[in-house]
Amino acid sequence: MLGVCYYPEHWGIEKVEEDFRRMKELGIEYVRIGEFAWSRIEPERGKFNWEWLDETLDIAEKVGLKIILGTPTATPPKWLIDEHPEILPVDKYGHKKNFGSRRHYCFSSPIYREEVKRIVFIIARRYGKHPAVVGWQTDNEYGCHDTVRCYCQECKEAFQKWLEKKYEGDIRKLNEAWGTVFWSQEYRSFREIELPNLTPADPNPSHVLDYYRFASDQVVEFNKLQVEIIREFSPGRFVTHNFMAGFTDFDHYKLSRDLDFSSWDNYPLGHTLVFMKLKGMEQNPFDRTGYPDLISFSHDLYRGMGKGKFWVMEQQAGPVNWAPYNLWPGKGAIRLWTWQAFAHGAEVVSYFRWRQAPFAQEQMHSGLLTPDSTPTLYFQEIKKVFEELNTLDLHESVKSDVALVFDYEADWVFSIQPHGEGVHYLDLVLRFYTALRRLGLNVDVVPPGVSLDDYKLVVVPSLPIVREEYLSVFEKVGGLLVFGPRSGSKTESFRIPKEMPPGPLKKLIPLEVIQVESMGLKHTETLRWGGKSYSVNVWREMVRSDVPETLASFEDNLGGVFKNKNVFYLSFWPPVEFLTDFFEKLALERGLIVKKLPEGICLQKRGRFTFVFNFTSEEIPLEIPKDTRVVLGSEKIEPMDLVIWEETS
Amino acid sequence: MLGVCYYPEHWGIEKVEEDFRRMKELGIEYVRIGEFAWSRIEPERGKFNWEWLDETLDIAEKVGLKIILGTPTATPPKWLIDEHPEILPVDKYGHKKNFGSRRHYCFSSPIYREEVKRIVFIIARRYGKHPAVVGWQTDNEYGCHDTVRCYCQECKEAFQKWLEKKYEGDIRKLNEAWGTVFWSQEYRSFREIELPNLTPADPNPSHVLDYYRFASDQVVEFNKLQVEIIREFSPGRFVTHNFMAGFTDFDHYKLSRDLDFSSWDNYPLGHTLVFMKLKGMEQNPFDRTGYPDLISFSHDLYRGMGKGKFWVMEQQAGPVNWAPYNLWPGKGAIRLWTWQAFAHGAEVVSYFRWRQAPFAQEQMHSGLLTPDSTPTLYFQEIKKVFEELNTLDLHESVKSDVALVFDYEADWVFSIQPHGEGVHYLDLVLRFYTALRRLGLNVDVVPPGVSLDDYKLVVVPSLPIVREEYLSVFEKVGGLLVFGPRSGSKTESFRIPKEMPPGPLKKLIPLEVIQVESMGLKHTETLRWGGKSYSVNVWREMVRSDVPETLASFEDNLGGVFKNKNVFYLSFWPPVEFLTDFFEKLALERGLIVKKLPEGICLQKRGRFTFVFNFTSEEIPLEIPKDTRVVLGSEKIEPMDLVIWEETS
Amino acid sequence: MLGVCYYPEHWGIEKVEEDFRRMKELGIEYVRIGEFAWSRIEPERGKFNWEWLDETLDIAEKVGLKIILGTPTATPPKWLIDEHPEILPVDKYGHKKNFGSRRHYCFSSPIYREEVKRIVFIIARRYGKHPAVVGWQTDNEYGCHDTVRCYCQECKEAFQKWLEKKYEGDIRKLNEAWGTVFWSQEYRSFREIELPNLTPADPNPSHVLDYYRFASDQVVEFNKLQVEIIREFSPGRFVTHNFMAGFTDFDHYKLSRDLDFSSWDNYPLGHTLVFMKLKGMEQNPFDRTGYPDLISFSHDLYRGMGKGKFWVMEQQAGPVNWAPYNLWPGKGAIRLWTWQAFAHGAEVVSYFRWRQAPFAQEQMHSGLLTPDSTPTLYFQEIKKVFEELNTLDLHESVKSDVALVFDYEADWVFSIQPHGEGVHYLDLVLRFYTALRRLGLNVDVVPPGVSLDDYKLVVVPSLPIVREEYLSVFEKVGGLLVFGPRSGSKTESFRIPKEMPPGPLKKLIPLEVIQVESMGLKHTETLRWGGKSYSVNVWREMVRSDVPETLASFEDNLGGVFKNKNVFYLSFWPPVEFLTDFFEKLALERGLIVKKLPEGICLQKRGRFTFVFNFTSEEIPLEIPKDTRVVLGSEKIEPMDLVIWEETS
Ligand SMILES: [Zn+2]
Ligand SMILES: [Zn+2]
Ligand SMILES: [Zn+2]
Repeated sequence: MLGVCYYPEHWGIEKVEEDFRRMKELGIEYVRIGEFAWSRIEPERGKFNWEWLDETLDIAEKVGLKIILGTPTATPPKWLIDEHPEILPVDKYGHKKNFGSRRHYCFSSPIYREEVKRIVFIIARRYGKHPAVVGWQTDNEYGCHDTVRCYCQECKEAFQKWLEKKYEGDIRKLNEAWGTVFWSQEYRSFREIELPNLTPADPNPSHVLDYYRFASDQVVEFNKLQVEIIREFSPGRFVTHNFMAGFTDFDHYKLSRDLDFSSWDNYPLGHTLVFMKLKGMEQNPFDRTGYPDLISFSHDLYRGMGKGKFWVMEQQAGPVNWAPYNLWPGKGAIRLWTWQAFAHGAEVVSYFRWRQAPFAQEQMHSGLLTPDSTPTLYFQEIKKVFEELNTLDLHESVKSDVALVFDYEADWVFSIQPHGEGVHYLDLVLRFYTALRRLGLNVDVVPPGVSLDDYKLVVVPSLPIVREEYLSVFEKVGGLLVFGPRSGSKTESFRIPKEMPPGPLKKLIPLEVIQVESMGLKHTETLRWGGKSYSVNVWREMVRSDVPETLASFEDNLGGVFKNKNVFYLSFWPPVEFLTDFFEKLALERGLIVKKLPEGICLQKRGRFTFVFNFTSEEIPLEIPKDTRVVLGSEKIEPMDLVIWEETS
Repeated sequence: MLGVCYYPEHWGIEKVEEDFRRMKELGIEYVRIGEFAWSRIEPERGKFNWEWLDETLDIAEKVGLKIILGTPTATPPKWLIDEHPEILPVDKYGHKKNFGSRRHYCFSSPIYREEVKRIVFIIARRYGKHPAVVGWQTDNEYGCHDTVRCYCQECKEAFQKWLEKKYEGDIRKLNEAWGTVFWSQEYRSFREIELPNLTPADPNPSHVLDYYRFASDQVVEFNKLQVEIIREFSPGRFVTHNFMAGFTDFDHYKLSRDLDFSSWDNYPLGHTLVFMKLKGMEQNPFDRTGYPDLISFSHDLYRGMGKGKFWVMEQQAGPVNWAPYNLWPGKGAIRLWTWQAFAHGAEVVSYFRWRQAPFAQEQMHSGLLTPDSTPTLYFQEIKKVFEELNTLDLHESVKSDVALVFDYEADWVFSIQPHGEGVHYLDLVLRFYTALRRLGLNVDVVPPGVSLDDYKLVVVPSLPIVREEYLSVFEKVGGLLVFGPRSGSKTESFRIPKEMPPGPLKKLIPLEVIQVESMGLKHTETLRWGGKSYSVNVWREMVRSDVPETLASFEDNLGGVFKNKNVFYLSFWPPVEFLTDFFEKLALERGLIVKKLPEGICLQKRGRFTFVFNFTSEEIPLEIPKDTRVVLGSEKIEPMDLVIWEETS
Repeated sequence: MLGVCYYPEHWGIEKVEEDFRRMKELGIEYVRIGEFAWSRIEPERGKFNWEWLDETLDIAEKVGLKIILGTPTATPPKWLIDEHPEILPVDKYGHKKNFGSRRHYCFSSPIYREEVKRIVFIIARRYGKHPAVVGWQTDNEYGCHDTVRCYCQECKEAFQKWLEKKYEGDIRKLNEAWGTVFWSQEYRSFREIELPNLTPADPNPSHVLDYYRFASDQVVEFNKLQVEIIREFSPGRFVTHNFMAGFTDFDHYKLSRDLDFSSWDNYPLGHTLVFMKLKGMEQNPFDRTGYPDLISFSHDLYRGMGKGKFWVMEQQAGPVNWAPYNLWPGKGAIRLWTWQAFAHGAEVVSYFRWRQAPFAQEQMHSGLLTPDSTPTLYFQEIKKVFEELNTLDLHESVKSDVALVFDYEADWVFSIQPHGEGVHYLDLVLRFYTALRRLGLNVDVVPPGVSLDDYKLVVVPSLPIVREEYLSVFEKVGGLLVFGPRSGSKTESFRIPKEMPPGPLKKLIPLEVIQVESMGLKHTETLRWGGKSYSVNVWREMVRSDVPETLASFEDNLGGVFKNKNVFYLSFWPPVEFLTDFFEKLALERGLIVKKLPEGICLQKRGRFTFVFNFTSEEIPLEIPKDTRVVLGSEKIEPMDLVIWEETS
């Protein structure tokens, strides 16, 4: 099903009915509104202006559109900030941020939390049972613009309380956990603890990790405040949030537990440029389509978060305004992205936005209509998708034989202590993911701790902190289980484990990481495996191993691939080429059907349908399996096109 | 005529007479003094030390030199700052700047404005009618060191008043203009408005543009305060200011209306390095001469500002101290730059500085004399220029058949919303300018709104905001009229026009820009025109056109060159190669004589004289037209040399 | 002799005896402890916890280890900071730094100085005469984390007093020295003077240089406070400090005058990456060994500082955690570095650290043992070194025929006024040093002003400020004396000398530098000498010379190599290739034995021993001189190995 994001307050109520009718014609079913409209709802404290929103919802009902209502808490209005300037956040340099854009609030602010409860209560009470309202979105893109981590006085006090609770009021526990004996950092009370910014040298990583957890928890708490009120006043409606992929400053898994399902905002072109920059790449072969595996990964991530269900709340539907540069999506790309989402299990794909605003910060961000209401080139693609969608029954879900374990805490550990250039958790994860996808395998992305019993292959790109509950799950894995570097390398307190890395994982594979080296992007060492050589940079580990099998190793014998029963450990930053070869071998061993695909070609199965996408600029000939029926496209896939076939047997 | 910048306070009065006599011998006629000497004039509040300046002016009169007196307001002395520290400016991070260099004041400060009026009044009253004083320079290089935009409390209050006036006291007009409905940015009163710094996300571009206009106006007001006092107390003397080319934070056109004519400070080597960096260029073929078109452009710009009259107030006359690196000018370069200025219509070229100071910040900035008073290598070149100048009568002015429309507001729009890497207004302007100069055409650089009736070709590299008065001028253009990308793309309030871009220009050429893409520096698309292909990066626009003629287009048919009657629109960032070919065709159509010149060769006409400059390191053979007489040089132009011929018919 | 750095407070007293016994077995003689342990010694004001330290020292005595006790002043504990937050330093942006790492204090703080005296007194009184204590280290790595230059209010006041003293209470002297007439910077009293940060344009270089001197003096004073107390209470023990090579923000020579000898912390891999970055190099052929000449240079520097005696207090003994990336040292590198230190005259090499800490900021910094007490790969290398050391009698000292004059003030002058990209004093110094080392010459690094009578060749890479006492030493030099660019270019007050550069050096070589150019890294000019061409970038000087001999010159005749009697002046940034050829010629003239070595091969003599080190990855065949006896290694030197021979005649 398709949706769209819409801002009735931008256009005046007179436009709304016409817009809603045109949406309906296009095939739109869901409309998200309201998430930045606080100043239009409450232009002064206690003075409400409901008319426009009442009418909008009534027209939606009349036209037959379903509304997702956003809470407007990402944009507290000026009068509120002027009443309580202490709501404003403070950056790591100690600069107070100003009103004048969005996300200008501190998640910890007690006053702002009261105001948030007040406004959400008022809106939920008024519209919670409106027949047009089918669901809610809390706030908007938590974490955008680097706003999770605030360094204000109120955060400091809240952090002290958070620590006091975590360490059960015993400062000696904190001192022990953080190793504050180092550099005379010992504290005598929780009141002495500062936020970890503006230190002359690096702050204590245990201190920083607890602060990151605290900051993440503040977002979770902030969101939960809203959810509880909505649930009370809007029974039977779902609550979701539109996450930004790649914004890992808070734990999306933890927050999503309070939601009915997760949504995410899919902007392939900008996200790809940001990711390429992270990897230090200069050439971008996917600059008009986005890097396909980066997109698929997020679909699989948020599907896993919602127990099989997810939405794309904002789908790029034209050029945007915020990336280093902003190309037009290639011809066919919008349709391709939409189908890609559905192939990965999306329930709804909702385009951003209905009409390009001719004013303010996002005036260069396109919509389905230009500011003068003319359909864009991309409008037609959506029409086509809608028609195609009607020919298929997509009620089945995505099943995978392969799981990839993803962990927000791992990302924090890597970012607090990269130990060298190029050491980024997301890069490592994408290497594992990409290799699996090049083999044509469906992948479930799951958090550590959930059952992995049904998978034939489980890959853990890295899991520095292995909690007890994670370990017990790993012990039950019957399939193959592959760990990447730094797994088990830290305790919960960001210490090296007493038993040495990989810490608790030594139960699964008895080896010991003695020392690591970061190699940067230019220094390389050669890995040998199965008669082939692979060039490795970024990271290596020196391993002491009593395990019988060393499958692959470096020329200097310092590390490689280790095996114990069904468990593998990779002590280096693996190149995609190696992982593809390696996973192929493992998959074949376990009887998985693999199909080696060139870069830019993606295969995904949902129920009885198989989708193959061509993100390249070449026509790709494809061998369609027997006992299948092509339901869309043909066996020669045009550039930026797809084929779908259905099992017939 | 030649001039020089001189600091008698650095050397003691005993040196002045000797220095003045040596200047006179060299051929110097004008001497600028006094512009940083506040602490020597008024060492304590109200206690004045006039002796040294009285004597300096008397000696000048005696020796026969003409004095330009600078107001010392760029350097308020320490006692004044200590009395009123609120004069100090605040940068965009909220850091108060310190005393200890120059330009340490806020243009909005009411206290500083009073102090400025006081000191200018006192100096103008004393010297306004001194026979040696022929003119005045206000302050020095407004805008240098990023000092136009201040974020202090006084600027905030002044900005609120400025907005209140602009929006006629009606905050609803401001809300409508800025589109503050977006992201709940609505204001209830002008007192609520902040300066647009330190926002978590980008501030509202309409807000920023108004702030940039305000900041520019503060400079204009600040300057006008001084001019009015000088005019009252120094009748018959001119008032000018020494602008820095490329410092576009305030509107030089607007400020120059209060001057008698404009001057500028010409430092080719440093300016070229800065410009090459802006363009991301690594090789600089002009590192000992400066990029010739960059220099010529400024001459043409400031000539246009002064209705045909301009000075070079500071001419680089040796290596400077402030560029990323500081090479010696090539042998002959000083002479070349001097002649180039005169060829473009300069009245006076004044070298910076007479003698290198052996102390303080500019001790590595050379002068005509070394600190021990020895002439530099470059001294001899100036002597030669002076002798050559005496053989020519340069009373005639520069005439051009071609106009280029330049707009400071356009630069602000581009810088507020570049929308992608490489999108710089000055780069775009220089592409148009360079192409015209490669055809050997004289170019007038003019602001939008002045009459264009007499030109055969008018180019507008970009004019995002087309005010009514600009449009009416364009409508009257009889020659060919070429608009570059983004023209007409914004309203005065930085909104997309209701009628879509190019907004009011649709009257001239009925097309519509639906969407734009920024392409960065590495992505390219191919433009086809006249059997040739051109590689385009940076920017493209998608155009809906009912115009009969599309002269050039891209492979994907998205944009190109459009024509309606005498009006052309280029919907992309044009490479110089394309523009040269294209303008050649247009110029020939209109009967202009074009002469295609290689890079580094410049041809300029002033009255009956034609000048050809060789900025390359190769000897260039040249065909001298018939009916002319060579008055300087010969038909083989040596590297860093020139030839001048005179029409004889 | 060997040593190690140890933190008993990290492990508990129960571990200490075992650790000490293992050290002893390995051959360790010296153990440094205590330098960050303030919070363990004094957990609250006035409440002391001596037990652990008493026992540690007693065990050391029992086991037979010698203790160097560090004062814990680099890490004031939280309770002290909370009592007196004004101790915290302020960075150049005006941001107050926070507690939470180390070096969080201002050297000028009167309160902190009192606290430092108190704690040093208490510790020195208690342990000053303990039989295990043989020496003291003050604080730790002064200057690390950019902490020498503080911009707090107390520094401002202390700076004013420092200036008042220097200029004998006469503000006119300061105004004259700084040239404050420039830009109206004149001061009426010392109370008006600010710290030179946050100025809109560059601050006055004379102002900055005095501030740098002040900041350096504050460190020297701060250190002296400690030394005086230690000397009183710990008679017969030495006092040293562990300097960081390349941290030139304070004058190590000046501080070392209060010490018995200097020590330094030798981290070849990280230092090399930092240095390569400074030079803009992309490839690092020494990424597993460090750039050998960079290491040797520091040995020679600190040997000179201690009148022939020095220690390596912290020797990298495995991968570290703080460089851009952190490779494992190559196999054999630890042994090579240790021998290299002894070859250059080190008395003790002390490894950092005994055991890797599993917690806090340095948990990724390796030790000789892993956190679980297992010996690392490198442990064995140290064992081998110890055994080899026992076979040699290294009581003789290093003698050199060549001196290189090094000056911290020169580094400040270059950094205050680089005048162009690539102009770094350390790069220039290393070029001279490297060329001498490629000729197999021993080099003494000495400060300006010490006697140079005994050297056959003295090189001065640059000495901008030539004080009277320096000149008188140069006048007495009997050997060849080579000056590099910018020598004599500034007065003590950072002005260009009245007699023009090279100022006082004109007495030695009558030439005059008229002007300089900085060329950046890409612009090159060709130097011709002895039939060869050399490509020069970065810097050139235009020289007026009446000296008979110009040995080498540029194509445009602007500068080169000048000679007067035994004195040479190089007016450009010389490439190593040129310097090697040039010094070879000079050395041969003076009868020195030179041996041209390829990059990565180092030869060093200590007493009757000659050491040759192979830092390359190739085996190097070597011709061993007659009348010698090989005492270690052989004439084919393996990669990362060495040979030592002894004179037998
Ligand atoms: Zn906060
Ligand atoms: Zn201001
Ligand atoms: Zn301080």
